[in-house]
Amino acid sequence: MAELHPDVAVLAPLLGTWTGTGAGEYPTIEPFEYLEEVTFRHVGKPFLAYGQRTRAADDGRPLHAETGYLRVPAPGRLEWVLAHPTGITEILQGTVSEVDGGLEIDLESTSIGRTDSAKDVQALRRWFTLDADVLSYDIRMAAVGIPLRHHLSAVLHRSNS
Amino acid sequence: MAELHPDVAVLAPLLGTWTGTGAGEYPTIEPFEYLEEVTFRHVGKPFLAYGQRTRAADDGRPLHAETGYLRVPAPGRLEWVLAHPTGITEILQGTVSEVDGGLEIDLESTSIGRTDSAKDVQALRRWFTLDADVLSYDIRMAAVGIPLRHHLSAVLHRSNS
Repeated sequence: MAELHPDVAVLAPLLGTWTGTGAGEYPTIEPFEYLEEVTFRHVGKPFLAYGQRTRAADDGRPLHAETGYLRVPAPGRLEWVLAHPTGITEILQGTVSEVDGGLEIDLESTSIGRTDSAKDVQALRRWFTLDADVLSYDIRMAAVGIPLRHHLSAVLHRSNS
Repeated sequence: MAELHPDVAVLAPLLGTWTGTGAGEYPTIEPFEYLEEVTFRHVGKPFLAYGQRTRAADDGRPLHAETGYLRVPAPGRLEWVLAHPTGITEILQGTVSEVDGGLEIDLESTSIGRTDSAKDVQALRRWFTLDADVLSYDIRMAAVGIPLRHHLSAVLHRSNS
């Protein structure tokens, strides 16, 4: 097991696996609930690897997934790069702050890439709060002509598995 | 184990884990050799999940990694979305062809995203050839003001592990 790279030391509380439940809504879809598993890993280099999968709360069928990396280019700054199976790439940039022994992360998209077959996602904002063993997030999205508005939120707990 | 989604049936020969060796070069760096592991997985939805890691051939230290998804939006077409820990996102689009029981894949970047701290990668081309249990690729890159030129190539074998 490599030692965590000092550039990403502030992100140490994220490392591991998180599970919980979330809810999604958007004007173009029916509201839905999901089960989520998130992992943050490292290999000793100056980034964390991130993976996420969700399943429908009703029948467990796979819903979304996303994968990517987190970087800390300067103290208090965070860059998060993501790929989505929906044909979208997402670059988020913003801040990471240590607050009362936890973390607050505030990010906005600075670049969204789309394949020809992808939906027209225009912008995203993501907020994360880590407080002891609870990781929660809120995501706003602008897509298909609709301005930025609430899309997803979830509350996850540190998993011992 | 879910059944492979029919939209990505053409990609079935990629599924599993591949390991082998590669070599890299670029005018701005010393040539280098690497060990590589690539995985393609699916969950029954119309995409494959892709993950890749390389290590230095000399001392085994972690080098690059990348992660993303493959989609087949229409017969013979391929979309590949990727995130890199270097702060880069990459959208590749092109063709997938069945040739003599194998596959040929020919892709070019249509969108590259960069965080503020990322190197100035401008364009990529990737070719893959799958022939029985051998997967080889060639990558050209335009970056830091240098036009598209050979950067990476590798030959991987299907791993039984």
